[in-house]
Amino acid sequence: MDIGTVAGLAIALIAIGTGIVLGGGNPLALIDAPSIAVVFGGTAGAIIVSFPIARVSKVHSIVLKSIFSKPVDPVSTIKDIVGYAEVARREGILALENLVPQMKDEFIIRGVKMAVDGTDPELINSIMETELEALIDRHAQGKQILDTTGRYAPAFGMIGTLMGLIFMLSNMDDPSKIGPGMAVALITTLYGAIIANVVTGPLAEKLSARDTEEIMVKTIVIAGVMAIQSGDNPRVVESKLLTYLPPGKRAELERKEAA
Amino acid sequence: MDIGTVAGLAIALIAIGTGIVLGGGNPLALIDAPSIAVVFGGTAGAIIVSFPIARVSKVHSIVLKSIFSKPVDPVSTIKDIVGYAEVARREGILALENLVPQMKDEFIIRGVKMAVDGTDPELINSIMETELEALIDRHAQGKQILDTTGRYAPAFGMIGTLMGLIFMLSNMDDPSKIGPGMAVALITTLYGAIIANVVTGPLAEKLSARDTEEIMVKTIVIAGVMAIQSGDNPRVVESKLLTYLPPGKRAELERKEAA
Amino acid sequence: MDIGTVAGLAIALIAIGTGIVLGGGNPLALIDAPSIAVVFGGTAGAIIVSFPIARVSKVHSIVLKSIFSKPVDPVSTIKDIVGYAEVARREGILALENLVPQMKDEFIIRGVKMAVDGTDPELINSIMETELEALIDRHAQGKQILDTTGRYAPAFGMIGTLMGLIFMLSNMDDPSKIGPGMAVALITTLYGAIIANVVTGPLAEKLSARDTEEIMVKTIVIAGVMAIQSGDNPRVVESKLLTYLPPGKRAELERKEAA
Amino acid sequence: MDIGTVAGLAIALIAIGTGIVLGGGNPLALIDAPSIAVVFGGTAGAIIVSFPIARVSKVHSIVLKSIFSKPVDPVSTIKDIVGYAEVARREGILALENLVPQMKDEFIIRGVKMAVDGTDPELINSIMETELEALIDRHAQGKQILDTTGRYAPAFGMIGTLMGLIFMLSNMDDPSKIGPGMAVALITTLYGAIIANVVTGPLAEKLSARDTEEIMVKTIVIAGVMAIQSGDNPRVVESKLLTYLPPGKRAELERKEAA
Amino acid sequence: MDIGTVAGLAIALIAIGTGIVLGGGNPLALIDAPSIAVVFGGTAGAIIVSFPIARVSKVHSIVLKSIFSKPVDPVSTIKDIVGYAEVARREGILALENLVPQMKDEFIIRGVKMAVDGTDPELINSIMETELEALIDRHAQGKQILDTTGRYAPAFGMIGTLMGLIFMLSNMDDPSKIGPGMAVALITTLYGAIIANVVTGPLAEKLSARDTEEIMVKTIVIAGVMAIQSGDNPRVVESKLLTYLPPGKRAELERKEAA
Repeated sequence: MDIGTVAGLAIALIAIGTGIVLGGGNPLALIDAPSIAVVFGGTAGAIIVSFPIARVSKVHSIVLKSIFSKPVDPVSTIKDIVGYAEVARREGILALENLVPQMKDEFIIRGVKMAVDGTDPELINSIMETELEALIDRHAQGKQILDTTGRYAPAFGMIGTLMGLIFMLSNMDDPSKIGPGMAVALITTLYGAIIANVVTGPLAEKLSARDTEEIMVKTIVIAGVMAIQSGDNPRVVESKLLTYLPPGKRAELERKEAA
Repeated sequence: MDIGTVAGLAIALIAIGTGIVLGGGNPLALIDAPSIAVVFGGTAGAIIVSFPIARVSKVHSIVLKSIFSKPVDPVSTIKDIVGYAEVARREGILALENLVPQMKDEFIIRGVKMAVDGTDPELINSIMETELEALIDRHAQGKQILDTTGRYAPAFGMIGTLMGLIFMLSNMDDPSKIGPGMAVALITTLYGAIIANVVTGPLAEKLSARDTEEIMVKTIVIAGVMAIQSGDNPRVVESKLLTYLPPGKRAELERKEAA
Repeated sequence: MDIGTVAGLAIALIAIGTGIVLGGGNPLALIDAPSIAVVFGGTAGAIIVSFPIARVSKVHSIVLKSIFSKPVDPVSTIKDIVGYAEVARREGILALENLVPQMKDEFIIRGVKMAVDGTDPELINSIMETELEALIDRHAQGKQILDTTGRYAPAFGMIGTLMGLIFMLSNMDDPSKIGPGMAVALITTLYGAIIANVVTGPLAEKLSARDTEEIMVKTIVIAGVMAIQSGDNPRVVESKLLTYLPPGKRAELERKEAA
Repeated sequence: MDIGTVAGLAIALIAIGTGIVLGGGNPLALIDAPSIAVVFGGTAGAIIVSFPIARVSKVHSIVLKSIFSKPVDPVSTIKDIVGYAEVARREGILALENLVPQMKDEFIIRGVKMAVDGTDPELINSIMETELEALIDRHAQGKQILDTTGRYAPAFGMIGTLMGLIFMLSNMDDPSKIGPGMAVALITTLYGAIIANVVTGPLAEKLSARDTEEIMVKTIVIAGVMAIQSGDNPRVVESKLLTYLPPGKRAELERKEAA
Repeated sequence: MDIGTVAGLAIALIAIGTGIVLGGGNPLALIDAPSIAVVFGGTAGAIIVSFPIARVSKVHSIVLKSIFSKPVDPVSTIKDIVGYAEVARREGILALENLVPQMKDEFIIRGVKMAVDGTDPELINSIMETELEALIDRHAQGKQILDTTGRYAPAFGMIGTLMGLIFMLSNMDDPSKIGPGMAVALITTLYGAIIANVVTGPLAEKLSARDTEEIMVKTIVIAGVMAIQSGDNPRVVESKLLTYLPPGKRAELERKEAA
């Protein structure tokens, strides 16, 4: 589970709830069935028109995954791969087969299995690159749907508020109903703002950051599998893979090693 | 018919309608002839000034087509073309003439006919590429008009609301008319928001997605016709055409074939 | 006269007028001298600061020209040039001098005259290219001033509305004047919105579209004059010039010719 | 003095003043000390945080210069340089020393002096280019501060209006003070809109236009000094320098010369 | 301490305070616990979802550093390095070890130590470049979090205001509470505007400017250490390093030296 995502969402919601309680408001006043219908239904409709259905349904799972998957550590991935390279050097590449059950990453397993099977290196590379491209593709599509949802939710919020105001204003027989009428009208705008700023905006940012991490780790895995397959010295493998780390992490590591 | 487009539009409209009914509003209060004149007439005028008339009229049909045409499946297109390649290999290219009545895609038919007629390969390629460019061109123009409509409709909505407020405020003899006056003034803004967010925005997104699909399929058809014409082995034709698929679909296919 | 521009402007204004009449408003309530001073004067001042005066004055005529000039048809231009090429082939290039009085386009005439006079081809090309660049330049400057006007008019509309509200609110002795005061205050915002969305926005779009057409036609004319001058076969001239047409028009022509 | 800048600012202010007078408003109602403190002080603070102090202070003078400097005419600069080239050709490059007192442009003087002193051509070029780059740099920095000011002034206008509304609303004992309270609250928003749209926006545009002119003229001067220094024929100097003119000016000149 | 940042923030806050005092408002009316919870808690939550936690925590220190670190002067850095180059020329590179205690910049010290230790020049260069890239990276991440905070704070301000209005409007039994209710509702929007325009916006601009300076100085240091290490003549070292100065500073220096 990505603690940052869950904790951040909890903090935002608790902050809003605290504001309500401290301000003496009644949270139930913010729940309104017609407003839910307009904002959620309208946004869902706009998204279903905007994107092919296959894409809309797949994204659902990607978002959940981005909330519940935990971040991958490129440094431990490098250490794992260097370990496999040492085994391969010492005991031959076939010895890696015994290590497969201990491997955690599906992508490493697939690569190592192909290397053990003696698959042509170019083919291994091409298959793994294709999978990486597919991942980048899926993430871009997930982010695009989140971004579009974050544009439509406030728009349908405004549409709901306009409708509420029109109904309220066109029928002002009872002055005591004006205030509550406007209150209800504003709820859709509130829903739109919350969806865009509490949910889709931050999740899209997190997806971007996670995307960059995953691509980096998968790129390291591909380079590592290729290096193991060609029988590189474990030290060479390590120095090769370290060049894929972002400069911040690399400088940190170098300073540690110098110490 | 594109189910996503129709279903999405229906969902958005039903959501809005549900909101109205649940909220106890009278949908008829949202229909106002002067507001329709200002928003629809004004937007139409702005669009007619903005673009050459020939372009405005053509786009109409493209939008309808984008709603009613069904998505094309690149995988089944590849299967069809590989099938034609097998027939051409086995029975000679002239045998394809008999298959023309079963072909569904106009673009394939035109290409196959030229190949059967022994047209010069370069000329076939150039004619089909020209047609593809024309398609890209038409789609870009269609999307541009939708985008511009989505910018002008809310602007004319605001113009209508400003006019309504000015008339209402400059003539406030009867206080009981203030509310209804403001209600009517807001209707143009509502129209503008609905046009931009229910109609033109999502349709423009869908056009983009559909555009990408159609270009991909037509590019596959061109490559396929060229390969058939040059007498390629059906397996080679297939592997050539698969490279045009997006990485997601390719990875899916490769995993299926590996299974 | 560009029918689209004039008809579109008329439609937008008629739509607004219809809305006013149907809604029972008094159009005179929208005319207010101080508002005109603030929005038109303020925007004019901002534009005069923003751009060199020479540029501001020239643009005036370009905008009028863009309204009153009629679109040029690239296909008929190609036909004309092919006709001149036939005459030049049959009767010699000097025979073109007799055709000059029938030519409609200034730019063709200048090019043909230089060709007849035996001017060096490179010089003809360079002079015509310079003129084309100057045209592109003038159009870009015209469009930039329209775009900037479309940004400042709503801004001065808001400035006028703020001033009107401040004066009205700071002096509320007579409650019956509050409504009319706000009405007048809103008029400047209305003017700004109308200038930006009825006038400058659509005209800037049209200028862009017309610009593209004119550049295409002038590019065809330059290529045509160069081809005539070098004594090309009329068929070759035609096929050369057709490559300058946008794919849509070319596909149309090719299909017609195939029929 | 740049007549366009001064006249434009005057026109905008007169337009606003006319609007006030015609509308019967009291201009003094728009002057409010707390509002001045919030908008001007707040914007100044934000700018001082945003940019190094050295830069903030220098820009002050650049803006004044952009208002009071008069536009430079590239054509007369070319004529001047061609004149110097003739003198240098006829009487030797040292004769230019006597012309220095008549020269108006500092940049030409520095270049001519170096040429007369027999400075190495490459060094002359490098020194003049460095100075030109420094000018471009200073202008970009000036424009950036104007743009940022134009973003912060409306923001502090909004901050002031929000504070004014909060104070007014939280203390509504005397209903007759509500109007004037809101009026005062809106003044900060008005100040922000005027600063952004009357002052910084147009001045930034003018700086851009002036920048382009100055760079062109300085580039012409550098090319001219280099050509004089190398003893080029005055006709060659002229034709070399004319290529730096924008196409519009060049086409104009060519037509005049052809007449 | 960066005087500009501190002075600018003080000026902005004093300006706002002056506005409040001059306008007769009660500053305590702007402090509201529920509003603080919604805006600060909500924005913090959105930021924690948006970025990996490691990054959020690190940025904290970078922002503080950008407020308290003083600007580095590239000219004095060049003078220092030229001084070290003179010592190295005169007394040999090992003599630099004695100067280390007087050196102020960590980055110079690390470079000089490596040069004194006889580290391979390419390795020195690569290690220092990696550290520079890491710095650029950290700054970009710091700026991105500031920018995102500046987008979310106003959004949560709007969310708070909408909630406040809804609670106030849905419960209007006591008319005397309407004003204060709206006042409190607006406080969140005020907080959002102040965070974005007084804090994050200007600090992000300053970080950008400081970033550019630091990168320039660090690039000069790298070039200087490499030049010292290769035993360059101090004059050559100086002229090499001066080319890294921005044109404005260079022109200034050249004019001073010419005087």
